[in-house]
Amino acid sequence: SNISKKAYKILYHPIMYYVDWFISFFLLLLAGIEHPFYELLEPDESKLKIFAAVLESLIIAYFTFDLGLRFFWLGVKRYLRQKITLARLIGVILITIDFILALSIPWYYQHRFLRTCRPILFLTSHLNRNIRNVVNQLLNSIRRILDLYVLYLVFVVIFSLLAYNILGEIDVANYGTFPDSFITMFALSTTVNYPDVMLPALENCLLYFLLFFPFLSFGIYVLTNLLLAIVKDHFSRLEKEKLKQLLEFRRVSLLRAFHLGTQLSASEWDYSLFRRVMLSISKTISEKQCLLMFKVLDRHGNQKLSWKEFKQLSNVMSMRWRRSDLTNINKMWHRMIPIRLLRRVSEYTYVLVSSFIFKFIINLVILTNCALLIIETLVYDTPQQPGSDNGFRYESAFFLPIYFLEFCLQIVGFGPFYYFTHGWHVFDFIILFSSIIASISGYTYIIVLRTFRLLRVLKAKNSFRRIFTIISLSIPKLMRFVISICLAFYVYAILGMCLYAGKLRDCSFNELDLPEYNPDCGEEYDYQKNPPDGLYYLVNFNDILHSFITLFILMIVNNWQVVAKGYIAITGTYSYLFFIFFYLFVVLVITNVTAAFVLDLYDSISTTLGKSFTVRVSLSKKVL
Amino acid sequence: SNISKKAYKILYHPIMYYVDWFISFFLLLLAGIEHPFYELLEPDESKLKIFAAVLESLIIAYFTFDLGLRFFWLGVKRYLRQKITLARLIGVILITIDFILALSIPWYYQHRFLRTCRPILFLTSHLNRNIRNVVNQLLNSIRRILDLYVLYLVFVVIFSLLAYNILGEIDVANYGTFPDSFITMFALSTTVNYPDVMLPALENCLLYFLLFFPFLSFGIYVLTNLLLAIVKDHFSRLEKEKLKQLLEFRRVSLLRAFHLGTQLSASEWDYSLFRRVMLSISKTISEKQCLLMFKVLDRHGNQKLSWKEFKQLSNVMSMRWRRSDLTNINKMWHRMIPIRLLRRVSEYTYVLVSSFIFKFIINLVILTNCALLIIETLVYDTPQQPGSDNGFRYESAFFLPIYFLEFCLQIVGFGPFYYFTHGWHVFDFIILFSSIIASISGYTYIIVLRTFRLLRVLKAKNSFRRIFTIISLSIPKLMRFVISICLAFYVYAILGMCLYAGKLRDCSFNELDLPEYNPDCGEEYDYQKNPPDGLYYLVNFNDILHSFITLFILMIVNNWQVVAKGYIAITGTYSYLFFIFFYLFVVLVITNVTAAFVLDLYDSISTTLGKSFTVRVSLSKKVL
Repeated sequence: SNISKKAYKILYHPIMYYVDWFISFFLLLLAGIEHPFYELLEPDESKLKIFAAVLESLIIAYFTFDLGLRFFWLGVKRYLRQKITLARLIGVILITIDFILALSIPWYYQHRFLRTCRPILFLTSHLNRNIRNVVNQLLNSIRRILDLYVLYLVFVVIFSLLAYNILGEIDVANYGTFPDSFITMFALSTTVNYPDVMLPALENCLLYFLLFFPFLSFGIYVLTNLLLAIVKDHFSRLEKEKLKQLLEFRRVSLLRAFHLGTQLSASEWDYSLFRRVMLSISKTISEKQCLLMFKVLDRHGNQKLSWKEFKQLSNVMSMRWRRSDLTNINKMWHRMIPIRLLRRVSEYTYVLVSSFIFKFIINLVILTNCALLIIETLVYDTPQQPGSDNGFRYESAFFLPIYFLEFCLQIVGFGPFYYFTHGWHVFDFIILFSSIIASISGYTYIIVLRTFRLLRVLKAKNSFRRIFTIISLSIPKLMRFVISICLAFYVYAILGMCLYAGKLRDCSFNELDLPEYNPDCGEEYDYQKNPPDGLYYLVNFNDILHSFITLFILMIVNNWQVVAKGYIAITGTYSYLFFIFFYLFVVLVITNVTAAFVLDLYDSISTTLGKSFTVRVSLSKKVL
Repeated sequence: SNISKKAYKILYHPIMYYVDWFISFFLLLLAGIEHPFYELLEPDESKLKIFAAVLESLIIAYFTFDLGLRFFWLGVKRYLRQKITLARLIGVILITIDFILALSIPWYYQHRFLRTCRPILFLTSHLNRNIRNVVNQLLNSIRRILDLYVLYLVFVVIFSLLAYNILGEIDVANYGTFPDSFITMFALSTTVNYPDVMLPALENCLLYFLLFFPFLSFGIYVLTNLLLAIVKDHFSRLEKEKLKQLLEFRRVSLLRAFHLGTQLSASEWDYSLFRRVMLSISKTISEKQCLLMFKVLDRHGNQKLSWKEFKQLSNVMSMRWRRSDLTNINKMWHRMIPIRLLRRVSEYTYVLVSSFIFKFIINLVILTNCALLIIETLVYDTPQQPGSDNGFRYESAFFLPIYFLEFCLQIVGFGPFYYFTHGWHVFDFIILFSSIIASISGYTYIIVLRTFRLLRVLKAKNSFRRIFTIISLSIPKLMRFVISICLAFYVYAILGMCLYAGKLRDCSFNELDLPEYNPDCGEEYDYQKNPPDGLYYLVNFNDILHSFITLFILMIVNNWQVVAKGYIAITGTYSYLFFIFFYLFVVLVITNVTAAFVLDLYDSISTTLGKSFTVRVSLSKKVL
């Protein structure tokens, strides 16, 4: 119908994708200006309340409008059948209930746990389909390793019973009761309290080591790695299946295309047909590319493509082309210079900057610079104003001109186009100009960034270049993980704020006598008693920023039991559930999925890297 | 020649293998009764000195004798060309020098660092060839990841410079000087000091989190996993190559065997030839097995084996055979009972114990038992004499008879042969009888071992059974790793004892005023100042037992910086090298190689498990 068509056109307009993404993203950001305010925002509290409420109502209005359009487009039946639309509907209903409750009930305003549903709306946004896949994968991984969790918990329970019975009298603090013993052993399985909880037993008798040895070696070296193995197995099987489906789909589409083509002419495709089809498919394919692709596909060299030759099309389309004489782009730059003398200069500069000796000297300068930097910092034993000492001054006076000269020579020799399209040169440029700005403005410690140039020296070795390639190729995929993790953090941060916001404050402030404040949040938190660790009150859920930092600290695992102890002290033993669940369902999953991902990526890249090189060689032979 | 033959016969006698292994093992054990004595041995010091010296001289005499024999067998040229013999020669020379120096120089007697060469002799023993392979693999892995180590250190150096410049004034204790900053950041890359060294900066400004975030996320999630990926890649490639070589070798030998056979008769092997050859090869192959193998190999069913059929021989030879009616062994047991009534009883018992309901009830009993055990321990909140409370008494009075009844029924129903050859039954038996002994003798806490039976309940589920299979299959291979790790520990323990033996003692004993004793071994070590952690003096190198425990603690990584600080306080900053080297070249290698090993094993087992089942099915069809 007409309305349905119009609704479709609005919904699937490219701009709407971005609008939708930004609005769902703003919905997440709202947590930054909602109840557990960041201390700097607190004076404006009442204004912020109104501002946030207005923003939220606008966002809800947008989503209702969007769902209305979808309703017009799809009708009732298909509306409820489409998974994503349904998820969106539920999400909108939940956030609307949340909003209404928050406006009407003051208690709920401070414990808006339904905000945990906001990521649903973010995930259903069309531009986030890749992230949705990753989240799916993460949830699947949890399902797969659930069995191992049971084994893990049984294992911990058995050993906590043993420890309770054997060490209950010797070390009352850690093993005196079964729950204590369980928590000690659970923390021990994450190694965070390791030698500390064993030492009192060892003081009694060295043989008690035999209780800890099997627990730790089995727990850390067998169970953890089995977890990784299962996740990796699942992960690589999933990737393979996806690839298989993709290849199958490609094959079928290519076969259909080939048959459509052969119905028009003979049983094989000639160049004119190929060219016409290619140019009509995509506007980005040039005439030259078309010819190149044809030449590569035509293995027999008979100017015709059989099905066997044609089916390689999708591989050939994804190839990147480069002239076999790589210096060409530089030559073009040289030719562009009008005056002859200057052209000569630039040509000679090119020979200089692309020579081995030049690179060697520059690498030597960088090494010297870094060595001097380290020696300087070693000489000045006491901490000082970094900007005021003359060490860093002579640094910038001597080395900065050298780097600037290198930059100028490279620009003249290579030409700006080549220079600014190559990663390492851009990297150099950024560091050089931040150093220059730093030395002018006085923030001299940015000069330390120059040590990042050490990475460029490492690049000279083949094996390092390989590592850098792998890291740079993995970044886009890793980013999806990071965003998925952030969403999990968001949910947990909201929960944490509902449970603990404002309860944990600096223990040295106990003269303030706040209503909800409990000064007894553990020894580790008390600055007066225990100076080095007394700052744990900073690991709190008092606002969204602190919550994220707290969750990151918990993700790194180390000393999570210290953080947990404080929360137990101010609330109750049940708070351990919050931390144990976070460990089992967020930390373990993230760690293992990331590892599985990097392992898989390394495998696939180390095979592809070899392939692409050989293809490139055979190409240059064929085409030229 | 004659002497050479005799020497060969002595050297390669099976008993000599064991003698050699035991003597090289005793050489390692000697460290237990050598200089840094265990406190219980100290009163006998002078006697032990003489005893150890006599033993060592005897061991050296044996090795000299062994090398002499090898000399007679091989002659000079081949003697020096054989790698293992040469290694042995060098090892013997070194331990002889060590022995002589220890006898003549009193200082050296207390710092016998040449004892680190003893594992060479252990590794060259013939029975340790598998362990030698693993050690080779470990050393290879180190070589492979050396590049990544450089990247890792550069990364730490860059960030310690940044931290020194940015946080040097804010947190003088951790970042005040460059070496401090480096050690803080290095420890941070192992996460052991994580929130503690970030909190003083966060107290100042929340933005400093942006310095720690990239460091930790890149260091832990990217670099560590890349390390694992490289080790795993190397590992699985090595395994594949080995397998390929093995298969190639097998194929060649089989082909040669096949041609030798066909020269005698026709171009194919008939059963009589096959039978003769098989029975002459090995005495363990029975007539029945021979027939079975022939039937499996003979795919065409023409009673002849062509080369295509014959080359599967090595696969068929490694098959394990089982009657298709699995209950047969039980039936044999029933038939063995002479009296008819008893036979009937045993047959009915068999039906009972192999029924689903029986298993279900037993599993329920186990679950109830474990639940009661946990509830009991929850009820008694205060630690108590485990033997005296009546909770555990009623435990053994009620549940022990049930388990004993189960045992009796199973013995009657299945027969003792079947019972004692099945892992899970043996497992049950051990737990049952240790519980009975415990309840008689009064060590009632061994009853807690009964919770291990929970594992049997888990077995009921398929996915758990798979995990148990994988774990049990991986044990023999894992043992080789454990032994290799122990050798690495041995070397490090000797080094540690040379450097630190006797220097670290209980800080509360400072009234003793020992000559080499330095009371200033860090706050963590001082029991008076810091009760919970004051026991770190137990993490010492004062004797070989403590050294192994210390190294294990360092291997678990957590709180290694606390251990290190104590040693720095009593010696000097250079001691960090000892700990950093241990982390880089032992801990990282062990962790990654173990992970790579488990991952690889999981892959290979999860494919083999499926295979073996299908083969078994097709077998039973063919043979019967």
